[in-house]
Amino acid sequence: MKPVYLDNNATTRVDPAVLQAMLPLFRDQFANPSSAHALGASVSAAVRKARRQLQALIGAEFDDEITFTSGGTESDNAALLSALEAAPNRTEIVTSAVEHPAVLTLCAHLEKTRRVKVHRIPVDCRGRLDLDAYMAALTPQVAIVSIMWANNETGVIFPVARLAELAKEVGALFHTDAVQAVGKLPMDLKSTSIDMLSLSGHKLHGPKGIGALFVKRGVNFHSLIKGGHQEHNRRAGTENTPGIAGLGTAAELALKFMDDETTRVKSLRDRLEGGILQRIPGTCVTGDPLQRLPNTANISFEHVDSDGIPLLLSRIGIACSSGSACTSGSQEPSHVLSAMKTPHAAVRFSLARDNSEEDIDRVLEVMPAIVGKLRSFFGSGPGNPVYA
Amino acid sequence: MKPVYLDNNATTRVDPAVLQAMLPLFRDQFANPSSAHALGASVSAAVRKARRQLQALIGAEFDDEITFTSGGTESDNAALLSALEAAPNRTEIVTSAVEHPAVLTLCAHLEKTRRVKVHRIPVDCRGRLDLDAYMAALTPQVAIVSIMWANNETGVIFPVARLAELAKEVGALFHTDAVQAVGKLPMDLKSTSIDMLSLSGHKLHGPKGIGALFVKRGVNFHSLIKGGHQEHNRRAGTENTPGIAGLGTAAELALKFMDDETTRVKSLRDRLEGGILQRIPGTCVTGDPLQRLPNTANISFEHVDSDGIPLLLSRIGIACSSGSACTSGSQEPSHVLSAMKTPHAAVRFSLARDNSEEDIDRVLEVMPAIVGKLRSFFGSGPGNPVYA
Ligand SMILES: Cc1ncc(COP(=O)(O)O)c(C=O)c1O
Ligand SMILES: Cc1ncc(COP(=O)(O)O)c(C=O)c1O
Repeated sequence: MKPVYLDNNATTRVDPAVLQAMLPLFRDQFANPSSAHALGASVSAAVRKARRQLQALIGAEFDDEITFTSGGTESDNAALLSALEAAPNRTEIVTSAVEHPAVLTLCAHLEKTRRVKVHRIPVDCRGRLDLDAYMAALTPQVAIVSIMWANNETGVIFPVARLAELAKEVGALFHTDAVQAVGKLPMDLKSTSIDMLSLSGHKLHGPKGIGALFVKRGVNFHSLIKGGHQEHNRRAGTENTPGIAGLGTAAELALKFMDDETTRVKSLRDRLEGGILQRIPGTCVTGDPLQRLPNTANISFEHVDSDGIPLLLSRIGIACSSGSACTSGSQEPSHVLSAMKTPHAAVRFSLARDNSEEDIDRVLEVMPAIVGKLRSFFGSGPGNPVYA
Repeated sequence: MKPVYLDNNATTRVDPAVLQAMLPLFRDQFANPSSAHALGASVSAAVRKARRQLQALIGAEFDDEITFTSGGTESDNAALLSALEAAPNRTEIVTSAVEHPAVLTLCAHLEKTRRVKVHRIPVDCRGRLDLDAYMAALTPQVAIVSIMWANNETGVIFPVARLAELAKEVGALFHTDAVQAVGKLPMDLKSTSIDMLSLSGHKLHGPKGIGALFVKRGVNFHSLIKGGHQEHNRRAGTENTPGIAGLGTAAELALKFMDDETTRVKSLRDRLEGGILQRIPGTCVTGDPLQRLPNTANISFEHVDSDGIPLLLSRIGIACSSGSACTSGSQEPSHVLSAMKTPHAAVRFSLARDNSEEDIDRVLEVMPAIVGKLRSFFGSGPGNPVYA
C-alpha cells in the first residue's frame, strides 16, 4: 500500500517542478555565480530570479531584503546574533517558551556564555502568548524580540504584526521564525514592522539545506558566516545555486497554490480531527482553535504513551510524529506541550497539498484499533515508553 | 563549439553519478532523517553511508569525526570559533597571509571585535610559508593554527602534517582549510596531528551548499549553529540529505580516480604551462614548482591587465579566472599574489578530470593572439582595467 505521509511539519516532499528547476544548475549551469565569465553570469541570473520569487511570496518591498542561508536554523541564529552585535548596549532578548530549539538553544547558550538576559514569555493552555508578560518584558534594554509566526508542534499562530509594533515602541528589533508559516499563510511583510524573518526550503516542498533570512532595508545587519562577498556581504560561502533555484520555484508554487490548497488542506485536517474525536473517547485537539495553521492537527490521547501511536502507525506505512522531528528520538518531553501544561501524550499529524482524502480515511480507519490496543496494553494509567 | 571549462578551483561540474545518488533523496526518500518513522530511518542510513565515504577519502579513524556543514566557509568559521571558545585563556590565532577569505575575513573581524591577536605568517615569492616566522608565532597563547593545505589561487601546498606537529608542541589546535586539497591529494588524517579539517563538496564534483568539518576525537568542539541535536550536536538544522549523499558519492569517486586522474590531469596542466611559456614571451609560472596541486596553473603575464585575458577567453567559450571566484568582480588585487610580491597580472587555469587534451590545445591555439592583442592595445606599460 502507498505510504501515507502526515509529517509535513518535519519536512515536505520536494515538488517535482522544484527538482526540475534545480537540474540545470546541477548540469550545464554548474558554474560559480561569482565567476566573471559567461558561465558564471547565467547562474547569477538564476539566483536573482529566485530572490524575486521569494520576495513575492513574503511580500517584501525589495528583493535585496532576501539573503539565502543553509536553512531555518542558520537564519534564526544569524538574526539573533546580528541584533546583539548591532546594539551592544542592549543585552536582553525577548522570546517565547515555545520557540523552536534553533532559537531556544541559542538563547540558553547566550545566557550562559555572555551577559545576555532572556525573557521566555509563557503561553496559556491553548498555546496563546501571555500578552501582559510580553509587554512587561519590553524595555529599552531589549536588543531583539524573536517570536515565531506559527508553532511547529501545535500550529498555533502568534499575532506577529501586532507584536512587532509593540517591540518597535521600545526600539527593539523584531524577528520572527516563520519556518512553519511561510507558504501556508499569506504574507505582506512590507506592510508590517517585522525587521527579520526566517524561512526554510524543505518545509514548503523545496529542497533541504537552503533557507533565507529576510532583513528589512535599513536594519543594521552583521553576518554570521564571514568570508567572501556573496549575498551582498551578508552570507559568505559559494552559493547553493541549485538549492536557491529550487527554493525560488517552491516559493512560486506556494503562492500559486495558497488559496485553493489552503482551503482543501484545512478541510482534510478538520475531517481528520473531527473523525478522531468522534471515534475515539478521551481525545482532544491541542492549541488555539481560532488561530492555527490550516495543516496541523495536534491531538492528545488520554492513557496512551506518546510514542506508541506513531510507532504503530509507522509499521503500517503511516508517518506522523509525537513531537517535532528535532526532538523525536531524544526521549525529551516536548517543551511546547509542557509550556501549555498539556497533561496527555499528543500526536502531530501535519498535512500538505499532496495529501488526499484517502490518506485521511486510512488513518481514521486504523486509529481506533491502535489506540484501543495501546490502552488495553497499558491498562488505564499513563503508559511506559516500552516502544522506545 | 563546446565550452572549455578551466575554472575548477572556483567550482567543478557535478559528476553525473553524484546527481544520480542525490535523486532518490529528492524523491521517495525525502523524509527528515531525525524522524522516528520508517521513512526517516532509510534516510538516516543514507547519511551514515556518506559519512563513511568521506571518512575513507580523508583517512579519518572514525566516521563520527565527520560533521556535515553547508560548505567550506562555514567549516572554516566553525573551526576557528570553536577553538577560541574551547580555550578561553588562549587568545591568539596563527594563520597565513594567503588563506582564503573564509579564514582571513573572520580573523580580521575577531581582531576588531574581540581581544584576539592574529599572526599572519608571510610567504616568499614562490608562495612558500616562512617557517621561522611560523615557529616564532607559536606560543602557549595560541588557541588555534589555521593553515591551508593547498592554495586556491596558486595551488601551492603547505607542509601541514609537519606544521601540525609543531603546533601540538605548544598545545594549540591545528586546523587546515583543505577545500582545494581534498580529492586532489591522498590523505590519511589518522596518521597526522591535524585536529580539524575543512572541505567543500563543489570543489570535488559534488554539489554546492554542502561541506564537512573533520574534528579529531577528543577535541573539544563547540557548534557554530545551535538548535536541534543533528550531527551529534555539532551542527544544528535539518540535514541537507541529498547534498550529503552527493558529497559521499563525490568522495567515493575522488578516491577511485585519485591515482590515474591525478597523473593525467597533471600532464595536461604541464602541457598547458609548457605550451604557454614556450609560445608567449614574458610569462612565467607562479608558485612553488615542487609543492603544487596537480591541477592548477597560475601564470603571470608581463604587460597585460589581469582581467583582460579571462574576459577575451570567456568571449570565445573558455572559462578561467584572474584570481579566486570570491574576489573576482570585486576589483580587489589578489591578496595571495600581493603576499608573494608578484609584479605582474596572473591568470589561473584550474583543471579537473573532465578536461581533455582538446581543451588544452584550444587554449594554446588562441592564447598567443589574445596576449598579443592586449599587449599591443596597452602598449608595453601595465594595462588599465578598461574591460571592467
Ligand atoms: C519553527 C521552526 N523553526 C526552525 C526550524 C529549523 O529549520 P531547519 O531545519 O531548516 O534548520 C524548524 C524545523 O526544523 C521549525 O519548525
Ligand atoms: C581554499 C578555500 N577555502 C574555502 C573556500 C570556501 O568554500 P565554500 O565556497 O564551499 O564556502 C574556498 C572556495 O571558495 C577555497 O578555495
